[in-house]
Amino acid sequence: INHRTGIQFANTEDKQEFSKYPTKAGRRSLSRSISQSSTDSYSSAASYSDSSDDETSPRDKAQVNTQGSSDFCVKNIKQAEFGRREIEIAEQDMSALISLRKRAQGEKPLAGAKIVGCTHITAQTAVLIETLVALGAQCRWTACNIYSTQNEVAAALAETGIPVFAWKGESEDDFWWCIDHCVNTEGWQPNMILDDGGDLTHWVYKKYPSVFKKAQGIVEESVTGVHRLYQLSKAGKLCVPAMNVNDSVTKQKFDNLYCCRESILDGLKRTTDVMFGGKQVVVCGYGEVGKGCCTALKALGAIVCITEIDPICALQACMDGFRVVKLNEVIRQMDVVITCTGNKNVVTREQLDRMKNGCIVCNMGHSNTEIDVASLRSPELTWERVRSQVDHIIWPDGKRVVLLAEGRLLNLSCSTVPTFVLSITATTQALALIELFNAPEGRYKQDVYLLPKKMDEYVASLHLPNFDAHLTELSDEQAKYMGLNKNGPFKPNYYR
Amino acid sequence: INHRTGIQFANTEDKQEFSKYPTKAGRRSLSRSISQSSTDSYSSAASYSDSSDDETSPRDKAQVNTQGSSDFCVKNIKQAEFGRREIEIAEQDMSALISLRKRAQGEKPLAGAKIVGCTHITAQTAVLIETLVALGAQCRWTACNIYSTQNEVAAALAETGIPVFAWKGESEDDFWWCIDHCVNTEGWQPNMILDDGGDLTHWVYKKYPSVFKKAQGIVEESVTGVHRLYQLSKAGKLCVPAMNVNDSVTKQKFDNLYCCRESILDGLKRTTDVMFGGKQVVVCGYGEVGKGCCTALKALGAIVCITEIDPICALQACMDGFRVVKLNEVIRQMDVVITCTGNKNVVTREQLDRMKNGCIVCNMGHSNTEIDVASLRSPELTWERVRSQVDHIIWPDGKRVVLLAEGRLLNLSCSTVPTFVLSITATTQALALIELFNAPEGRYKQDVYLLPKKMDEYVASLHLPNFDAHLTELSDEQAKYMGLNKNGPFKPNYYR
Amino acid sequence: INHRTGIQFANTEDKQEFSKYPTKAGRRSLSRSISQSSTDSYSSAASYSDSSDDETSPRDKAQVNTQGSSDFCVKNIKQAEFGRREIEIAEQDMSALISLRKRAQGEKPLAGAKIVGCTHITAQTAVLIETLVALGAQCRWTACNIYSTQNEVAAALAETGIPVFAWKGESEDDFWWCIDHCVNTEGWQPNMILDDGGDLTHWVYKKYPSVFKKAQGIVEESVTGVHRLYQLSKAGKLCVPAMNVNDSVTKQKFDNLYCCRESILDGLKRTTDVMFGGKQVVVCGYGEVGKGCCTALKALGAIVCITEIDPICALQACMDGFRVVKLNEVIRQMDVVITCTGNKNVVTREQLDRMKNGCIVCNMGHSNTEIDVASLRSPELTWERVRSQVDHIIWPDGKRVVLLAEGRLLNLSCSTVPTFVLSITATTQALALIELFNAPEGRYKQDVYLLPKKMDEYVASLHLPNFDAHLTELSDEQAKYMGLNKNGPFKPNYYR
Amino acid sequence: INHRTGIQFANTEDKQEFSKYPTKAGRRSLSRSISQSSTDSYSSAASYSDSSDDETSPRDKAQVNTQGSSDFCVKNIKQAEFGRREIEIAEQDMSALISLRKRAQGEKPLAGAKIVGCTHITAQTAVLIETLVALGAQCRWTACNIYSTQNEVAAALAETGIPVFAWKGESEDDFWWCIDHCVNTEGWQPNMILDDGGDLTHWVYKKYPSVFKKAQGIVEESVTGVHRLYQLSKAGKLCVPAMNVNDSVTKQKFDNLYCCRESILDGLKRTTDVMFGGKQVVVCGYGEVGKGCCTALKALGAIVCITEIDPICALQACMDGFRVVKLNEVIRQMDVVITCTGNKNVVTREQLDRMKNGCIVCNMGHSNTEIDVASLRSPELTWERVRSQVDHIIWPDGKRVVLLAEGRLLNLSCSTVPTFVLSITATTQALALIELFNAPEGRYKQDVYLLPKKMDEYVASLHLPNFDAHLTELSDEQAKYMGLNKNGPFKPNYYR
Repeated sequence: INHRTGIQFANTEDKQEFSKYPTKAGRRSLSRSISQSSTDSYSSAASYSDSSDDETSPRDKAQVNTQGSSDFCVKNIKQAEFGRREIEIAEQDMSALISLRKRAQGEKPLAGAKIVGCTHITAQTAVLIETLVALGAQCRWTACNIYSTQNEVAAALAETGIPVFAWKGESEDDFWWCIDHCVNTEGWQPNMILDDGGDLTHWVYKKYPSVFKKAQGIVEESVTGVHRLYQLSKAGKLCVPAMNVNDSVTKQKFDNLYCCRESILDGLKRTTDVMFGGKQVVVCGYGEVGKGCCTALKALGAIVCITEIDPICALQACMDGFRVVKLNEVIRQMDVVITCTGNKNVVTREQLDRMKNGCIVCNMGHSNTEIDVASLRSPELTWERVRSQVDHIIWPDGKRVVLLAEGRLLNLSCSTVPTFVLSITATTQALALIELFNAPEGRYKQDVYLLPKKMDEYVASLHLPNFDAHLTELSDEQAKYMGLNKNGPFKPNYYR
Repeated sequence: INHRTGIQFANTEDKQEFSKYPTKAGRRSLSRSISQSSTDSYSSAASYSDSSDDETSPRDKAQVNTQGSSDFCVKNIKQAEFGRREIEIAEQDMSALISLRKRAQGEKPLAGAKIVGCTHITAQTAVLIETLVALGAQCRWTACNIYSTQNEVAAALAETGIPVFAWKGESEDDFWWCIDHCVNTEGWQPNMILDDGGDLTHWVYKKYPSVFKKAQGIVEESVTGVHRLYQLSKAGKLCVPAMNVNDSVTKQKFDNLYCCRESILDGLKRTTDVMFGGKQVVVCGYGEVGKGCCTALKALGAIVCITEIDPICALQACMDGFRVVKLNEVIRQMDVVITCTGNKNVVTREQLDRMKNGCIVCNMGHSNTEIDVASLRSPELTWERVRSQVDHIIWPDGKRVVLLAEGRLLNLSCSTVPTFVLSITATTQALALIELFNAPEGRYKQDVYLLPKKMDEYVASLHLPNFDAHLTELSDEQAKYMGLNKNGPFKPNYYR
Repeated sequence: INHRTGIQFANTEDKQEFSKYPTKAGRRSLSRSISQSSTDSYSSAASYSDSSDDETSPRDKAQVNTQGSSDFCVKNIKQAEFGRREIEIAEQDMSALISLRKRAQGEKPLAGAKIVGCTHITAQTAVLIETLVALGAQCRWTACNIYSTQNEVAAALAETGIPVFAWKGESEDDFWWCIDHCVNTEGWQPNMILDDGGDLTHWVYKKYPSVFKKAQGIVEESVTGVHRLYQLSKAGKLCVPAMNVNDSVTKQKFDNLYCCRESILDGLKRTTDVMFGGKQVVVCGYGEVGKGCCTALKALGAIVCITEIDPICALQACMDGFRVVKLNEVIRQMDVVITCTGNKNVVTREQLDRMKNGCIVCNMGHSNTEIDVASLRSPELTWERVRSQVDHIIWPDGKRVVLLAEGRLLNLSCSTVPTFVLSITATTQALALIELFNAPEGRYKQDVYLLPKKMDEYVASLHLPNFDAHLTELSDEQAKYMGLNKNGPFKPNYYR
Repeated sequence: INHRTGIQFANTEDKQEFSKYPTKAGRRSLSRSISQSSTDSYSSAASYSDSSDDETSPRDKAQVNTQGSSDFCVKNIKQAEFGRREIEIAEQDMSALISLRKRAQGEKPLAGAKIVGCTHITAQTAVLIETLVALGAQCRWTACNIYSTQNEVAAALAETGIPVFAWKGESEDDFWWCIDHCVNTEGWQPNMILDDGGDLTHWVYKKYPSVFKKAQGIVEESVTGVHRLYQLSKAGKLCVPAMNVNDSVTKQKFDNLYCCRESILDGLKRTTDVMFGGKQVVVCGYGEVGKGCCTALKALGAIVCITEIDPICALQACMDGFRVVKLNEVIRQMDVVITCTGNKNVVTREQLDRMKNGCIVCNMGHSNTEIDVASLRSPELTWERVRSQVDHIIWPDGKRVVLLAEGRLLNLSCSTVPTFVLSITATTQALALIELFNAPEGRYKQDVYLLPKKMDEYVASLHLPNFDAHLTELSDEQAKYMGLNKNGPFKPNYYR
């Protein structure tokens, strides 16, 4: 397992954030992926009408959409119009999916596909779902997280006739009830699964083994879900081809390097209003996440140094103009400490003790264990919540350390993720479904696959019009000289 | 007048924002300077207890601080503790003032100074006021803006015994009542004025001419106030030396270049969550403000081009790697349009008509006139408020243009200003007061002065410890070789 | 074959530069690798004493070193002292090898190794050879290129007792004579081969098959040589384990990204004195080479756009802030055109016709075919050599295009390669020899191997002291959490 | 005197380089300005035919141009054709002057002007001289430096009929002989002086006082010459209006900030082939020169820190992301030390003693006194010249410090200055001549003037087409709002 891929990793941190149900929710919450962050942040920005006094469980309500259907379960179908606007706004930055709709609409490549989906239900995933429908699929959908559903968006989907079973604030029981209602309906049997976390897959595998065996493919988005699939495969129990979209090049590079470059400044500003110019910053870890953070901070005038365990990444840091130090050597001088390692206890209590007054500490890596936050919950230290997501930890001598998001992911908690990045992921999911559904017999066996390089390139190409970028085409002569097909793939699979 | 200095300029924009009193408030609101922005933004971030149901006017309340004094008028003296914490937080980034307190405390350079002040009343100005007191001054204070007072901070100041007359949401009448109570108290006659906007100065000049004549100095912070002083001076009516701190080098360079470099990204992210990578941006104007914006945007991967009227700035843009274009040449392709000119109608309705769907338009210059927003208030266009400070202007064909802050200053409205920058201004004000109060007879005449270069350098030097920066000192031999005094000034006055 | 790896590729270009012997030298010259460039450039800078009138062939001279040995053949043994100084200068930037000498000197890991080597003979390779000797090896050496030998360095090596057979300006016959004398000496049989280009390997394979069969390992540096080895392996004729050091991560990343970032500016300045600020530049290809060029040019104020065939690289260019265009769209406006594609005819005659007066055209890719230089050798165009490596091509209307290095590699021809980069390659070679010589029976079979990730990391770690970089070490607990060995490898093999 | 303006400063350094005549040449050599550097470097690059055996003094030769004139004195009139090509190449990057020729050619604004000029005689100044002629002037020219004349260019000018008196390698006596022949010719009396260093002005003032009094204007380029003029003015002896073009904004900003950004990398690479990535560099002085150096070095991956005496510049360095240190704190760790202060003994022997092995030391400031080179010329240290302009200073323990250009200006000695920068200076000179010659009676008195802001802007505007930059024009309404004339000037005089 590559522990270093950063922000989309699910882990114990999520337990703290989501689990009210100690026994099982931990596992479920593992399914949380990056799309969560957008939801959370955005919802804090937009003015949702969720603060209604309506305490009735959606399961107890009788709701009908304007077409007369009641095959859905959402918070309030009347919020559909507001949800529609949110979807329309998202569409503006997801033109790759819109373009995919147009290119593939004539041929309806998903005609006959019956897809059950389990993802965060946000404006961005709504654009994905409606794209699948436009391509010919029948879809039923449920939420992969009990807190992340945008109720308005769920209503908007239900209003257009897509059976959605999800609301914000589901109970544990609700969660599985929704999944079951999504899969199990009379006269309709799913043949494709789109999952984010593996809960839906697991449910079908356990409860509806005959459905599972007949499925044509599974597309899985999260690290956790992919991990489960590989385990199933190893155990010889995976009787369906599955596509791992988490590790596609396009997604990896964008989710980490560029996404962190965009969000580190945002997360720090929104929480602390810190001025970047001249700040001494240490970034622990110079993988893609660390590279993104360092690029942005250096560009804004911060003086950045690096810690690394891997000499190759360390050498890159040197060549890129960053001093490579041990944390203990610099900890006293730092204004900001950022962890991006995927490791645990990278910042220890002892180091927290040695930080100077006002030092900001935050985590951009994959887990809330990078900073030893637990060690700060001790009687001699005072915690003072000064803003949402901002705590001052106060030492007996009055020194304050500024801890952001209690050591959880800064950009998940305190900034937004560009819709454009989510578009890349969603497009990859759509293409993976099309590929699996249309692949000739025998191309995919009962195993876990990476998206073919060529489709990765296709995802990229669909996003180029956003930048008004114009690709050059190989001439026949050039293609021959390079030993390439004119339509790609253009690089070997291992090229990053 | 230099129309190009950017964000601290006061102007008609402020009328719209603050004036409920069409006749006079317009003029008063001219006094709004950059510190306003911090106040606004910060107050939106911190959780003040202002939403009390207490509708009683502070003028009708009988309040006493714990020392038994009632010589103040604030919203609620009980908020003092919360205000104190805000002041303490601000002190962390204003170590220059704290350092000034320590260096000058023994000699009490302001002993005997009786200062009336009229500024925004925020945590940052509280640090200034308490520094003046620590240096020996007696102070009475009032607010330069009817909306910008942080009530808690005012309470904290009153609690320590500083007579403060200010609250958030004063009426026009309250405003002048406060100023008058600040100046006019038995047995105490001010001999120094610290003003931001010129209202206090004007009031003293008009109502208490004998006080005015005996004053030892005026320190004025705002463009508007400075402008009034120069007019008074020209008219031969300025009988007091006055210090123009608005145009000191340190303040100018920081408020414009660096401050905009910090805030342009923040302002855009908080309002639109836009991804910067690959965005096509046109920045109108390549003065200090434009330079700051361009540096930040380019560093984050935007593709930036420039419009300029001044060939020298245009040549700098070229050498810095920006294409210099006319707005009409590129307007159709741009994702973001930013004005930084200080001019009017830089973006016209015709150009707004030609923008592409989703184009973001905002202003970092000095005035809400840079974008012809008025032209957008026409029947064929629909305005949709999608978030605070974010409007979608919708054309009949469905095209949306995203207008931020209705064309007012983006960073004033939608981001924060680092306390560090405010510290520079506040330190300059303190030094100007010390200089005027202690200057030997005859050094300053009845005129408006710029802060001596040497004191500008002193302000800078007080801020270096924030960065752990170590200045080099000239040897005697080197000083002689350079023809410089070892303690400065190190550059001619015109050096920027 | 990955055609895109850039500067170290050998190709037909070399034929033009080196081959006086049309039939065979072309093949041999294929072995030219990057170290050549350093040699060439350096020799033009340093004042070698080569311009002697001594026309006698070294083969006809009787020379003896101060130890009385005559087992070598160099131009002039008396140049040894000058050569020694060159080696000492190189040692300063090759501290990784020096450090390797020290670390491994006690255990003499190459004791018993009898190495025949065929590389460029430069100060840098001398440091490598003397390191091998210090580690216990016996070495005999010859040159892989008839022009690239630094005679002084060869003399210095011979003086210390290393049998070297090489001089600048060998004939075809000399070349093979040298190789043969290197391999074939009484009472000594090589058991390791270090090759750059495959000529030595080929000679041993063909002429001394029994030696070949008993060899313990081959280390090959060049693309061409590696290609030959893979062919031999496929044909089932490779009876020795071979190490492909060309494709090690450390070498690839440094040779391309960083090395080009360093050399593009240098190459352009030395040839044209062009000012970078504000120049419009198109870079064809955004692989590692293109990325390096673009980073440097953008940083110096050039306005850079990109052409790409691969949508993933194109998307990276967008996110990095470069417009992605087709060459035809921009060719008229460009001041500089740079090819980095590895392809042919990327810049066509038609495009050359459309360039503006004074446009600079050069190639940083792998082959002189990227620019269609042949098309410029037509009667209507006038070539004017204005400086070494700089031609003005003059159109009938007077337009001049500035062609650098006749379309060959700019940085090979017109700039230098940092010794530090060569150090990485040389260290990798040394470690590969140690690994093969000491590997337990069965670890390596008769195949071509990449250097294990862990040794790649070791090469990197040996170069960190140059930067005073301090690696962090994993605690036991952390290593366990990450599932890593504390000493690495830290990343999966496919990580780049 | 502003000691900080950098590279064009004349000083004792020049004595060492040029003076063979201890008594007087020192003073004369003060006139050396930046154009020198280009000459020197360029001449080393191009293959001039100067190495002729012709030892005859030009004064003793009888030469006639093809028009039959012999009113000139150059090395060899037959080199005219080669010189013409050099001029043509220079014209390509001096399109501002060519454009000025075209714009002003009809009106012949210099008709009637009789100009004597004394400058470096290079291809670039030839373009200036021929522009003046094209605008109607009669010109006679001589060299301001005994070594800097490009003989071919002088020949080319003489061939077109411009009386030139200059050659490379003049004696002291030759120098004044040339000046005198330039001024003193029958039937022709100069009315304008263009000078670089003040020698010509001094000669006319002393020897031809009646000519001096009737002159309409003096244009002076160098710091030294300007200094002399101000002294003359103070003494009440300046009876002619003089224009100080040295201090025009356009020239200052370009000569320092941008020019150093371009040349620091070039100078270091050409001399040392140093790799920039990861190098620890200290730059002494953060004025315009230091800012330019730091920008370039940081961009190429160096880790840069700063020393400063001026707190304002130090604060800028902090905000720009550079640590501000004392030299002693870091000297042991540095790989490169660069001085940009204008001061003396900035790097002392003690600090040189503490540098690490291989440290590179060079000077980009104004004087060879910045590094205490004299202290290195002591018996315990060994100097080894390893390349042109590169010395290794070797300590008794073997430590080597790499000293570039013996502490003289690096970019003057070891890199080139872009013709584009020289174009800005030359255009400014031409405009100053036009302004003085055409100014209405009374606009200029007998004093030293800076070029009016508006003409500075005009110089800039003439250079914009090089970048295909398109200026925006103010509308009437906007000009009125800004209080500006539509044609400029657009900024106050003090704006930088």
